Amino acid sequence: MSDLPLDQVKTLLAVVDEQSFDAAAAVLHVTPSAVSQRVKALEQRTGRVLLLRTKPIQLTASGQVLVRFARSLAQLEQDALAELGLGAAGTRTLSIAVNADSLATWFLPALTGIAEDQDVCFDLQREDEDHTATLLREGLVMAAVTASPQPVQGCTSHRLGRMRYRAMASPGFIARHLADAPLTATLPAAPVIVFDRKDDLQDRFLRALTRRRTFTMVRHHIPASESFADAVAAGLGWGMVPELQAGPRGDALVDLAPDRPVDVPLHWQQWKLDSPALAAVAEAVARAAKESLR
Amino acid sequence: MSDLPLDQVKTLLAVVDEQSFDAAAAVLHVTPSAVSQRVKALEQRTGRVLLLRTKPIQLTASGQVLVRFARSLAQLEQDALAELGLGAAGTRTLSIAVNADSLATWFLPALTGIAEDQDVCFDLQREDEDHTATLLREGLVMAAVTASPQPVQGCTSHRLGRMRYRAMASPGFIARHLADAPLTATLPAAPVIVFDRKDDLQDRFLRALTRRRTFTMVRHHIPASESFADAVAAGLGWGMVPELQAGPRGDALVDLAPDRPVDVPLHWQQWKLDSPALAAVAEAVARAAKESLR
Repeated sequence: MSDLPLDQVKTLLAVVDEQSFDAAAAVLHVTPSAVSQRVKALEQRTGRVLLLRTKPIQLTASGQVLVRFARSLAQLEQDALAELGLGAAGTRTLSIAVNADSLATWFLPALTGIAEDQDVCFDLQREDEDHTATLLREGLVMAAVTASPQPVQGCTSHRLGRMRYRAMASPGFIARHLADAPLTATLPAAPVIVFDRKDDLQDRFLRALTRRRTFTMVRHHIPASESFADAVAAGLGWGMVPELQAGPRGDALVDLAPDRPVDVPLHWQQWKLDSPALAAVAEAVARAAKESLR
Repeated sequence: MSDLPLDQVKTLLAVVDEQSFDAAAAVLHVTPSAVSQRVKALEQRTGRVLLLRTKPIQLTASGQVLVRFARSLAQLEQDALAELGLGAAGTRTLSIAVNADSLATWFLPALTGIAEDQDVCFDLQREDEDHTATLLREGLVMAAVTASPQPVQGCTSHRLGRMRYRAMASPGFIARHLADAPLTATLPAAPVIVFDRKDDLQDRFLRALTRRRTFTMVRHHIPASESFADAVAAGLGWGMVPELQAGPRGDALVDLAPDRPVDVPLHWQQWKLDSPALAAVAEAVARAAKESLR
C-alpha cells in the first residue's frame, strides 16, 4: 500500500468529529451512503477495522493512527492555504483537551486574545487532567493540558506549573460536621463532593491525612467546576477547591488544612507539527499559566 | 425464568455506574473475576447479551431493562431500610441528569437544602437537555431535567418552566463584526460560540432570523456553562446566553436582539417510584424552577 486516498481519510475524520455517518455526510456535502462506502473502502485498503459502529462511534487502534494522520494533514493544509492567503473560510480548527478546573479559571483568557489574530477556531474538549493524554493518543485532539509529563508518542511536552487545591468547606458545614473532634476523625465520615468518578483528589487528600486506604462517606457528584465550588460554599459537602476559585468566594469557604495544600502539576502536550497557529496558542497558554499557576 | 438473582443484577449496576469491572469489584468488595462471572451468569440466565465490553462500557437494550430494574430495586431497598431506621451508611444515591445551563444557574440551590434532611447523596450527570431523556430511558439516571414533555416509558413528566436565552455579544465584538450592516447580514458571518456538537440554539436563532438553513461561520466549542458566558463577554464570539447568567455580567454583554429571545421549555421526568427521597427532590426542584424560570 503506497499511499492513502485522502478523501477517504478525511471522511473518517469527519465521522469521528461529527459522531455519526449522517452528520459527517452533511458536513462533507455528500450522501450518508457515500460516507459509509469511503470508510469501508479505507478499511479494505488498509486491511483493518477502523471504527466500531457503536454509539458513540469508537476508533480501533488502527483507526486512531489514521485519524491522527488526518488531523495533522488538515492542519498542514489549512496553514499552507492561510500562508497563500487562500484560507477563504478562515477556519483552522484547533482541537484542545483541557481539564474542567483550568477551563473555569486560567485557560480561557489565553485563547480569547489570539482567536482573531490567528484566524482559528477552538474546539475544546473537557476531560480530567489524568485522561486528556488519552484523547491526544487517540487523535481526538491535537493539544492537551495533561497531568502527566510523559510525552504521548509524536508529541512534545512542556511544564505549565502547579494548580493548587485546598480542602474547603462552608462555616455552617464545619459547625455541623467537623467541630467536635480533630479533622482526622471527623473528615472521613463527613459528606464529600467529588467532580465525577475520575476525580480522586478528595480521596488522595484523605489518604494523606489519615493514612487509611478506603472511605465510605456520603459522596455527591457535581460534574461542573463552578457548581462544584458553589456546592461546597452552600454546605452540601467538603471538597478540594482550586485556590483560583476560592478567592472570589471570600468567607463562604474556609480552608480546613492550611498546611496541607494539594498541588497538581500541569503540562502542555501537542503534536510535533510546524503550525504557526498551534505555536501561537502554545505560547499564549504558557504565558497565562505562568501568570496564574505556581 | 421466574426470578432474577439480585446479587447479579446489582453487580451489573455497579459495573455500569463505575464504568469498569475492576472498579465495580472494589465497590462490591469482591474480585474482578467474580464480577465478570456474575455478569456472564446473568447473561446466560436471561439468554441475552447485556453489555458490550467496550470503553466506555455500553449497555444493550436488554441490559438497559435490567439496570433500570436494579436501580429501582436499590432505591426501594434504601427507602425501606431508612424507614426501619437501618439506613446505616445513610447513602441513598439519587442519580439525576441535568443540562449544563440549569446546573450553572437555578438547579443547585434546590439540592443543597434537602441533602441533609433526606440523608441522600446526589449523583449528577451533565447532559444536553435534548438528550437527558435518553439517560432516563437507558436506566442511567432515575430523574432528569428534559426538553421533551413526552414521558419516557415508566416515568412521570411535569413542566418546570421556560429558560430564556438571548443572543449576546461584547461591545468590542459588536464594533468589530456587527456594526456595519443589519444583524441579518452580519451575524451569519460572525464567529459564534457553541457549547458542544449537541447545542443547536445558535443555529436555531440564526435560522429564525435569516430564514436560511445552513451557516458556515467560525465556530468555537466551549463545553462549560460559565466559561461559555465568559468567552462571549471576552469577545471570542456571539452566543445564546441564559438571562440568568447575563445579569451578573452587566455591560460586558449586549443583547443583540431584545425582541427575539429564545425560550427552552424544561420538564422534570422521574421514574414512577414511591420514594420519599425522590419526591422531596422533585418538590424542591419544582419550587426552585418556579422562582427562577418563566
